[in-house]
Amino acid sequence: MSKDKKNRTVPRTPPGFMDVFSGDVTSRQEMIDVICGVYRRFGFAPLETSAIEYLDVLGKFLPESDEPEGGVFALKDDDDQWISLRYDLTAPLSRVVAQYANELPSPYRRYQVGPVWRREKPGPGRFRQFYQCDFDTVGTSSVAADAEVCAVLTEALSALGIDPSDFEIRVNNRKVLNGVLETIGVAADGDQQLTVLRAIDKLDRLGMDGVRELLGEGRKDASGDFTEGAGLSPEHVDTVLGFVGSGEGASSRGEVCERLAALVGGSEVGREGVEELSQINRLLESMNLPSSVVKFDPTVVRGLGYYTGPVFEATLTFEITDEKGQKRSFGSVAGGGRYDDLVTRFTGTEVPATGASIGVDRLRAALKALGKVDTGAGIGPVVVTVMDKDRLDAYQGMVSELRDAGIAAELYLGSKGFRAQMKYADKRLAPAVIIAGGDEFDRGEVSIKDMRLGAELSKEIADREEWRKGQPAQKAYPRGELLSAVKAILGK
Amino acid sequence: MSKDKKNRTVPRTPPGFMDVFSGDVTSRQEMIDVICGVYRRFGFAPLETSAIEYLDVLGKFLPESDEPEGGVFALKDDDDQWISLRYDLTAPLSRVVAQYANELPSPYRRYQVGPVWRREKPGPGRFRQFYQCDFDTVGTSSVAADAEVCAVLTEALSALGIDPSDFEIRVNNRKVLNGVLETIGVAADGDQQLTVLRAIDKLDRLGMDGVRELLGEGRKDASGDFTEGAGLSPEHVDTVLGFVGSGEGASSRGEVCERLAALVGGSEVGREGVEELSQINRLLESMNLPSSVVKFDPTVVRGLGYYTGPVFEATLTFEITDEKGQKRSFGSVAGGGRYDDLVTRFTGTEVPATGASIGVDRLRAALKALGKVDTGAGIGPVVVTVMDKDRLDAYQGMVSELRDAGIAAELYLGSKGFRAQMKYADKRLAPAVIIAGGDEFDRGEVSIKDMRLGAELSKEIADREEWRKGQPAQKAYPRGELLSAVKAILGK
Repeated sequence: MSKDKKNRTVPRTPPGFMDVFSGDVTSRQEMIDVICGVYRRFGFAPLETSAIEYLDVLGKFLPESDEPEGGVFALKDDDDQWISLRYDLTAPLSRVVAQYANELPSPYRRYQVGPVWRREKPGPGRFRQFYQCDFDTVGTSSVAADAEVCAVLTEALSALGIDPSDFEIRVNNRKVLNGVLETIGVAADGDQQLTVLRAIDKLDRLGMDGVRELLGEGRKDASGDFTEGAGLSPEHVDTVLGFVGSGEGASSRGEVCERLAALVGGSEVGREGVEELSQINRLLESMNLPSSVVKFDPTVVRGLGYYTGPVFEATLTFEITDEKGQKRSFGSVAGGGRYDDLVTRFTGTEVPATGASIGVDRLRAALKALGKVDTGAGIGPVVVTVMDKDRLDAYQGMVSELRDAGIAAELYLGSKGFRAQMKYADKRLAPAVIIAGGDEFDRGEVSIKDMRLGAELSKEIADREEWRKGQPAQKAYPRGELLSAVKAILGK
Repeated sequence: MSKDKKNRTVPRTPPGFMDVFSGDVTSRQEMIDVICGVYRRFGFAPLETSAIEYLDVLGKFLPESDEPEGGVFALKDDDDQWISLRYDLTAPLSRVVAQYANELPSPYRRYQVGPVWRREKPGPGRFRQFYQCDFDTVGTSSVAADAEVCAVLTEALSALGIDPSDFEIRVNNRKVLNGVLETIGVAADGDQQLTVLRAIDKLDRLGMDGVRELLGEGRKDASGDFTEGAGLSPEHVDTVLGFVGSGEGASSRGEVCERLAALVGGSEVGREGVEELSQINRLLESMNLPSSVVKFDPTVVRGLGYYTGPVFEATLTFEITDEKGQKRSFGSVAGGGRYDDLVTRFTGTEVPATGASIGVDRLRAALKALGKVDTGAGIGPVVVTVMDKDRLDAYQGMVSELRDAGIAAELYLGSKGFRAQMKYADKRLAPAVIIAGGDEFDRGEVSIKDMRLGAELSKEIADREEWRKGQPAQKAYPRGELLSAVKAILGK
């Protein structure tokens, strides 16, 4: 069976793919369960599509070509048609909405959780397979659906144990920005608008003065590189900066709406946008969502080029220390908005939709930083050691007794000695270890070691020799008390 | 935005891939949760590998070639190496065991659930993406690990609500068959043994007489086609048939062991196999697993060519009516066994392992047939209808009140009238619908329709007109009693 050494396969994963073990699998699943529980409470129904779709359904052919874009994992099926791993959960949703238009309820409210695949250059924290956790309402232009996105995000983050003082849901509206730009003569969907959006997006990094330069003539950075500006007049730059800053110092969402109403002036699309925000505000109030949690914030521009109305971003506001040892606020963990072209490439018609996506893996990193993810302690099974191989069935009986009481337990199944078995129990994060040799059987007893107590005591007792002799965390019990003693150690 | 009609994309899935909706997603997840809960109670730790692996890691290159086998979805990565979707969960386990040999506990006990992909011809009930739910113990040759496989399968099926009288765990041992064949001069791993295995595998279809022919000179079927036999002498055929029939009418697993001991005679491997079964029997007894549930059954040959020791098969014994209207027993829902070459292609060494895989989707079909899967009733949200668009925030307030009490609820977000809203609520399987127009608001009331009661009554009341006027399932409540009234309807 064995192969030449040089012909052996090296066990490895392709770059950007990872293995997840034990407690990390469980805690991710628990997170997903909590999030989906909130989605269901809001009336979203689950959907599960396959990982593979037709490439044209994903819309990922190169323009004017029958070759796939670089960003997807695509191959030709047996009938020579291109198929591909999905790169998000929105494209499959579009297909489902178009394909089952007559069967689905309208509006259609669905959630989907699952991995997506991106054929991109992997890097630290950048994977080529990762989880998304989306919810969308399709087929309504009612702003009540948009207000609900804020409520879902708030509930989901709260349900995960994040304090409302540690996160913000920030809301902006593409229509308001369009309105502001209309008043100063910048066309919607043009290159100039894109430059304006890019400038606003740099607020965090460059501050108001840097953005001012980028909205005007342009900006020379420290290295001497020059970035062309949007070419707005100083007066128009002030208007845009007034828009960007209109959330600052506002005591309520209503106040932001008033400021925005003044900025959009007579622009129809702008007034529509402000009216949408006002309605969202009233709905948020009826849901008891305070402006300390859900904020109207015109600095949010991420995705503004793609979305057509309200946009949403959930941000964690507490500080973490990043890889470079620098403190920064954790940042975005979810985002979304309203979009109209969901099914256009299938049906030629526009179907309004709104929703958001929670980045499960990023959020897990945040919860770990907050100390809210338990990836290990107490999740291991009770280990029953084997001191005498001829008594396997007696040991197995102890294991069964514990399992029947709902306690995770296992027999040591290897062939090594006692010390190796204790090491094994340590690696498995066993909360307790059962030990029974000939002496114990003769006396009708079992010895039980409380591993957590043992670990604590071992820190306190400096003299290793004394420690080893004493074994204060290990005690003998009558065999009949096995279950009750283990329960006591587990705190059950 | 709209495209020429002829350029539109047809919304469709590639053959062999399917969409799963609402209750079917939830009930599958609930099944998986129950099964994994049992796995964890037995001390198995979760593992999640990525969907994509290197093709050489999966061992799926064509022999002497650098082209992938036909059965996998493979493509070349950016560095020109072949990568592929996994086709099972065992190959990734092999890789993990070889790659993390120093970090993992030994024995390593893991479970993994997830989709696998097979590039095969799809057909009715045959999909190219489906779920597997595996558990394995790696790094021990102890039969206690094999006995546990039987216990895990028994517990998992029981935990899913299947009565022990409706299933059997059938156990065989490759070594016993090898021993029996050794006594009659048939070499292990030879072509003749394969022919014998194939013959035994046809017992269900051909009966003892048909198998007898296939073990001897050969068999001519009804159409006149001749199948070459294994060429055993009549005496040797009797020995093999004695082995195959040795489970029949036995009152206990011990009795089967005695019969097998007589059949293997002096064969060393045969005696080893019988001794393994005897030990497994003792361990099963210590776990209180009766022989009515876990049976020693030499007719089980599936996978016997691949496994090296004990093999397991979980069979549902109740009858279903198949697609052709014929009654048959449901058959296999899980299988596994002991194998030794898990990491050989990586390390050149043999690592013993044993485990099994539960076919989640097949088992779901079985549970549906048993009426044990709830894919719909009661899972929809309470729907709050919109009778007056100017009161959206009042309606949203009702929704929030229900959600805050943990009740799935939603506002109707479409733009249609009352009748369409009731249809929508029907489609969503809403258990209750809240109705409040101007009159209700004036009186400080809400009307609530009990949809399940409504559906029942509507069956009873023949006169549709009378039914529509009366609406006996709809009642008015003071607004303050909304929550308690909905709770009463939900039985909470």
